[in-house]
Amino acid sequence: MFAIVMAGGSGTRLWPLSRRRTPKQLLALTGDTSLLQQTVSRLGALLKPHDIYVITSQAHVRATQEQLPHLPPDNVLGEPLARSTAVAAGLATVLARRESDEVALVLPADHFVANEAAFADGLREAARAAERGYLVTLGVLPTHPATGYGYIKAGPPLHPQVPTALVERFVEKPDADTAAGYLEEGSHYWNAGIFVWRVYAFRQAVERFQPKLAAALDRIQRANRTPGWMSEVRDALESVPAISIDVGIAEPAAAEGRMAVVPIDAGWSDIGSWSALLEALTQAKGKDLVASGQHLDRGSHNVLVHGGERLVVTVGLEDVIIVDTPDALLVCHRDRAEEIKPVLDEIARTAGERYL
Amino acid sequence: MFAIVMAGGSGTRLWPLSRRRTPKQLLALTGDTSLLQQTVSRLGALLKPHDIYVITSQAHVRATQEQLPHLPPDNVLGEPLARSTAVAAGLATVLARRESDEVALVLPADHFVANEAAFADGLREAARAAERGYLVTLGVLPTHPATGYGYIKAGPPLHPQVPTALVERFVEKPDADTAAGYLEEGSHYWNAGIFVWRVYAFRQAVERFQPKLAAALDRIQRANRTPGWMSEVRDALESVPAISIDVGIAEPAAAEGRMAVVPIDAGWSDIGSWSALLEALTQAKGKDLVASGQHLDRGSHNVLVHGGERLVVTVGLEDVIIVDTPDALLVCHRDRAEEIKPVLDEIARTAGERYL
Repeated sequence: MFAIVMAGGSGTRLWPLSRRRTPKQLLALTGDTSLLQQTVSRLGALLKPHDIYVITSQAHVRATQEQLPHLPPDNVLGEPLARSTAVAAGLATVLARRESDEVALVLPADHFVANEAAFADGLREAARAAERGYLVTLGVLPTHPATGYGYIKAGPPLHPQVPTALVERFVEKPDADTAAGYLEEGSHYWNAGIFVWRVYAFRQAVERFQPKLAAALDRIQRANRTPGWMSEVRDALESVPAISIDVGIAEPAAAEGRMAVVPIDAGWSDIGSWSALLEALTQAKGKDLVASGQHLDRGSHNVLVHGGERLVVTVGLEDVIIVDTPDALLVCHRDRAEEIKPVLDEIARTAGERYL
Repeated sequence: MFAIVMAGGSGTRLWPLSRRRTPKQLLALTGDTSLLQQTVSRLGALLKPHDIYVITSQAHVRATQEQLPHLPPDNVLGEPLARSTAVAAGLATVLARRESDEVALVLPADHFVANEAAFADGLREAARAAERGYLVTLGVLPTHPATGYGYIKAGPPLHPQVPTALVERFVEKPDADTAAGYLEEGSHYWNAGIFVWRVYAFRQAVERFQPKLAAALDRIQRANRTPGWMSEVRDALESVPAISIDVGIAEPAAAEGRMAVVPIDAGWSDIGSWSALLEALTQAKGKDLVASGQHLDRGSHNVLVHGGERLVVTVGLEDVIIVDTPDALLVCHRDRAEEIKPVLDEIARTAGERYL
C-alpha cells in the first residue's frame, strides 16, 4: 500500500496568509505544523515514509521537501504542469512506479481531521474494499446542512456487516433546503475528495473513461529517465485536458457500479475558507474564540484571530475573522469569507500583485 | 485677546494609536494634521500666532513646538507637574504675562470641530459677554441623548436679542432617560470644557473659590525668571490640589450668577474614544465607512479603519473599529470602545509596558 498526497492547490480563499509562494497546504493553520505535515503525519499510522508520495507543482517541490525532511526527497514529485486531480494521480502513480496489485490512497494535502484514529480506521476499511476491486471513496457524515460541499448518495451496503456501501451517485453542491433534506434522510455524505483503489483498478478506469490520459501515461511510463525527461512528461501531458477524479473517473465509475463509499465521522473539514477553519477549530477545541499569536480579548464570540508578530486586541466582537500578516490585514465577517476571491481581483487591479 | 490651548491630556482610550510618547492631541486622527494643529489653526480666524499659547507637560514641549513651527517657541509652556485644568489655566495666564483687561480663550487641544466658522462665531460672541465681566462657556447643542458628556442647564438670556444665557447650573453625565429628557426639553447643552473670560474676572474667581491656587500663582508671578526658576514654580504648585475649571471655578461661579453660556452648533466632538471619532467623522463626511491608509472594502457599514503602512481589507463588517499600528492591532465593537481602559491594565500586566 502507498499514498499519493495531492498538493497542487493554491487556497486563495485563505488570503492574506496563503500567497503564491506559500499556498494553503504549506501553512500552519490549525496548530504548529502545516496542513501538509499533518496529512503526512496522519498517514504514518498506516504507512512507512518511503511509501508516502507528495505531488505538487515544480515551483513548490523545494519547500515541500523542506517541510517533510523524513520523507525520501525523491518522493516529492514535481508536476510540470497542472491538469487537475485525475492527471496528477495518474502521473504520481507512474512516477512512483508502483505495482498494479498495490492499493493507493489518494488524498488532498490541505484538509483538517480532528479524530485521526477514526480517519485511519476509515482508510483501512476502504483499503479492504479496494482489494476486492472497487474504486473507493470516503464519505464524511454531515454534521450540518452544508452547501459548500458536493455529496455522495450511498446505495446498498456491500455486505450486511460492513458500513461500506455502493455509491449510487455523486451530487453537486446543493441549495440549503436540499442540504437539510440530505441531513435528515441520512444516506448522503460529504465528498471529501479522498480515494482508495488498486493501481490496476485505477488504470482500468482511466483506460475506459479517459483514454487520452491513459495514452499519455503509457508514453510517460515508456520514456527513458534520462536528464531532461521531464520535458517529455510535459509534452505528453500537454495534449491532456484538465480532468478531476470526481468528474472524470468517479462519476462514470459509480454509474457502472464500480464505486464504493466508506462513511467516516472524524471531524473532517476541507478548510476551504476562513469560516470553515473557524468552524473546524471551534468544534475541535470546544470554544468559540480561537486565536494564535499574541492576543488579548474582552468578550468576543465566534471569532478567529490568526495573528503574527504583533499584539492583537479584540473587544466585543461577534462572528469576525482577523488575519494579521506583515504586509496585509484582513478583517471579515465569518459569513462572507467566500468574498475574498473577488477582493483578490480588486487587489491585483488596485493595490498590486505583490500582495498576491 | 489671547488663547490658552490646554494640551495636558493623554487620551489612553485612543490606544493603540495614542501612546505615552504621542498623546491624543499630537495624533492626526481626523485628517492630515493633528488635533493640536487643527485647534491652533482654528484659532487663526481670531488671533495672531504670538497670541496663542499652548500649555503641556514638560515631556511634550519639544514635540508640541515641532508641530507648531509658526508659533513663537516660548508660547509653548511646559507644566512642571499636572494639576488639572484650573491650575494649568492659571499658570499659563501668569507665564504668558497677559494683562487683566484682556480676554482669554481657554480650550482643550484635542477636540474636533466640523464647522470652524460657526465655532469662531461662538467664540466671538463669548468674548463680547466676557468683556462685560462674565465667565463664559460654550454650550454645544446636543444632537443625540449622549450620556458621555456633562451638561449645562441654561437660564434666562442675558439680553432678548442674544442667544447667550446665564448658566443655571452644571449637570453631571446623565443616564439615558435623563439625557433623552434634556434633548427634548432644549435648554441643556453639552459641556465642552471651553471657557472665555477676562483675566481680571478669572483671577477674581480664583481668589474667591480657590485661595490656595491664587496664593501659588501670586508667588509664581513675583518670582525672578532666573535660570532654574521652574523648580520654584514646581514648589509653588506642589501645595495646590488638582482642580478642574468645571468643579473648582465654573460651578461655584454659576451658583453666584457669574457664568454665561453661548450655544454653538458646530459639529463638535471631544473624540473621547474611538467610537466618538467614528461618529464625528461619519457625520462630518456623510458616509458610514471612514478609512485612512491603504484600504479595500466590500459591504461594510459603520466602520472606522485607522490604517498605517499595511493594506487593510474589510469584508461585511458592521459597527467595528480597526486601528492598525506597527506593533499592535485593535479590533473593537463600536459600542465597547470604552473598554480599552481595562484592556490597557491587562496589557501592562501581561504583554508589557512597551505597548503603552
